[in-house]
Amino acid sequence: MMDTIKVFSPGSVTNLSCGYDILGFCLDKVGDTIIVKKIPEQGLRISSIDKYDLPLSIDENVAGIAAKAMISEVKISHGLDIKIEKGIKPGSGIGSSAASSAGTVFAINKIIGSPFSNRELIRFAMEGEKYVSGSYHADNVSPILLGGITLVRSVKDLDIIKLPNPKDLIATIIRPEIEIKTSDSRKVVKSKVTIDKMVRQSANLAAFISSLYTEDYNLMSNSIVDEIIEPDRALLIPEYYNIKQISLKAGAIACGISGSGPAIFSLSKSDKVANDILDKMSSHFDNVNINYNGFVSKINSEGVKVID
Amino acid sequence: MMDTIKVFSPGSVTNLSCGYDILGFCLDKVGDTIIVKKIPEQGLRISSIDKYDLPLSIDENVAGIAAKAMISEVKISHGLDIKIEKGIKPGSGIGSSAASSAGTVFAINKIIGSPFSNRELIRFAMEGEKYVSGSYHADNVSPILLGGITLVRSVKDLDIIKLPNPKDLIATIIRPEIEIKTSDSRKVVKSKVTIDKMVRQSANLAAFISSLYTEDYNLMSNSIVDEIIEPDRALLIPEYYNIKQISLKAGAIACGISGSGPAIFSLSKSDKVANDILDKMSSHFDNVNINYNGFVSKINSEGVKVID
Repeated sequence: MMDTIKVFSPGSVTNLSCGYDILGFCLDKVGDTIIVKKIPEQGLRISSIDKYDLPLSIDENVAGIAAKAMISEVKISHGLDIKIEKGIKPGSGIGSSAASSAGTVFAINKIIGSPFSNRELIRFAMEGEKYVSGSYHADNVSPILLGGITLVRSVKDLDIIKLPNPKDLIATIIRPEIEIKTSDSRKVVKSKVTIDKMVRQSANLAAFISSLYTEDYNLMSNSIVDEIIEPDRALLIPEYYNIKQISLKAGAIACGISGSGPAIFSLSKSDKVANDILDKMSSHFDNVNINYNGFVSKINSEGVKVID
Repeated sequence: MMDTIKVFSPGSVTNLSCGYDILGFCLDKVGDTIIVKKIPEQGLRISSIDKYDLPLSIDENVAGIAAKAMISEVKISHGLDIKIEKGIKPGSGIGSSAASSAGTVFAINKIIGSPFSNRELIRFAMEGEKYVSGSYHADNVSPILLGGITLVRSVKDLDIIKLPNPKDLIATIIRPEIEIKTSDSRKVVKSKVTIDKMVRQSANLAAFISSLYTEDYNLMSNSIVDEIIEPDRALLIPEYYNIKQISLKAGAIACGISGSGPAIFSLSKSDKVANDILDKMSSHFDNVNINYNGFVSKINSEGVKVID
C-alpha cells in the first residue's frame, strides 16, 4: 500500500454564462499539485502551501476543511500530511479553492484505499467551498472530480450530471491581474430577477444543453449569453466588454466571465482560433497596460488524476 | 391544384413544469379540424365554427388573425373560406387557440402551394397567440407545427429547437371542467423570482433537456418540477395537489399543470400506466363530484397534418 500520493487537481470554469451556479467544465494543465503522505501521528496536518500566504490551519483552509469532513466518516489508523503546490491564484475565477479541496479529498481517498467514489467525494469537497463562499456549491468541484462538463441539478440531493464534451471544443482563459473574492462577487448579484429575464436565460440554458448533445455550435454560440449576472459582475472586471468583443470577432463561439471572475473564458472549435483569441486579447491588455495571465486549454475529460 | 383541404391540428401541452413559456409537446388525436377552401371572392372569411360561440370576424378570431398576417405576405388571386371544427375547448390548457391558428396557417399554406416551411408558419400562428394572451408565445404553436417536443430559445429570433421524443413516453391529460383564461392565468404569476429559485428551476430544466437525450427517466422524473409557477396557478385548479399525488403514486414519471391549466398532464412509460393514471384520477374527480374530461395520448412526432 502506498505511503505517498501526488495528484494534479485542475482549474475549472463555471457558470458558462447561461448556467449560473450549475454548469462547469474542467481545465487541463493549469491546477494545484497536492501531495498526501501517511504519517504515524493521528490527525490531519497541512505542512506546506508554496504560495499566496494561505492558512495552514486545518480549520481555516479549504483543503483542511474538506479533508476533515471526509476523515470523520472513515476509520484510519494513521495520520495524513498534506502539501499543496498552488498552480491557481485564489480569487482568479477558475476555481482555486475547489482545486485544493477536491484534489485533497481525491488524494486522501486514493491513499486510504478508495472507500468513496469520485462522485461521493463531491460532498466533502463542497465543505471547502462553503467555507470560502458562504454556501454549498458543487459547480467547480464536480467537473474536477468527474471530468468534462457537468451540471449540478441539486446540491441538496447531490445529483450531478456529466454532460457530453464535444471533442472539438477548446477554451481560452485570460485573467486580468486583479483579485475578486467569490464572496464579494456574489454580493453584486441581485437577489431577484424578473420572470421575463428568467424565461430568456432558461431558454438559452436549455438550448446550450441541447447543443452539447447535438454538437450544434451555432446554437451553442447563440445560447451562451447572460442577461442576469454578467451586467453586474462585468463592472468588476477591467476591459471586460472590449475583451469579449475581441474574442468574438476573432472567431470565438462564445465568451463570458469564468466563475465569479476576473478570469474570462472563450470557447472555440480549434487550437488555431483559441490561440489567436489569446494573442489578440493579450495585445489588448498590453495596450491598456493591464497585467494579465492567459492560456489555452482543452476541456479535460478526465479531471483530477494521480501523477505519482 | 386542390381547392379544399382538411387538416387536423392537435392539442399541445406546454411548460412541462420546469420550462415555463419555452417547452411544449404535441398531442395525438385530440385537436381541431380545419377546412380551408378556395373561393372566387378576394379575402378571408371564417364561415363557421361549430361550437363555443367563438367570433367569426377575421380580426377577432385567432385563426383569422394568423391567416391575415400570413396572407399579407403572399399574392393570391382568390379568396379563402375557413371552417373550424373545435376539438379543444378554449381555456382548457391544451392549446385551443394555438390549434386553430397553427392549423389554419398550415392549411392555407398547403392550399396555396407551400410558400412557407412549417417553421416559418410559427411566426404567423404566433399572431393569434398574441391576440389571446397579450404577448408573443411560440410554446404551443411550435410543437403543433414541428411535431414532438420543442424548445423555444428565442421568440424574437424565432429560434425553435426540436428536442428528442423518447419513444416510450406517453401522456395522460385530465381537465376539470372549469375554464381559465390564459390572460388571467398569467396574472397570478409573480413578476419576479429570487435568484435561488431561478437557479434551482433552471438546474431542473437543464437536467430535463439532458434526460430527453439520454432517456434517463429517473432524471426526468426528478427534474419535471416547478417551484415558481405551480404554487400560484395550482390555486386555480380544483383538487390539483390530490390529483398530482394520485398520478405519481400510480407510477407517473411526472405530473404538472398543462399550459396555464386547468388541464393536468402526466407522463409515463407505458400505455398501461397511462391508462391506470387516468382511471385513478377519474375516480377521484367522480368522488368529489367534479366534472372532468380525460384521455391518454402519445407524444405526436408529426404534428399538424392533412387528413383530406
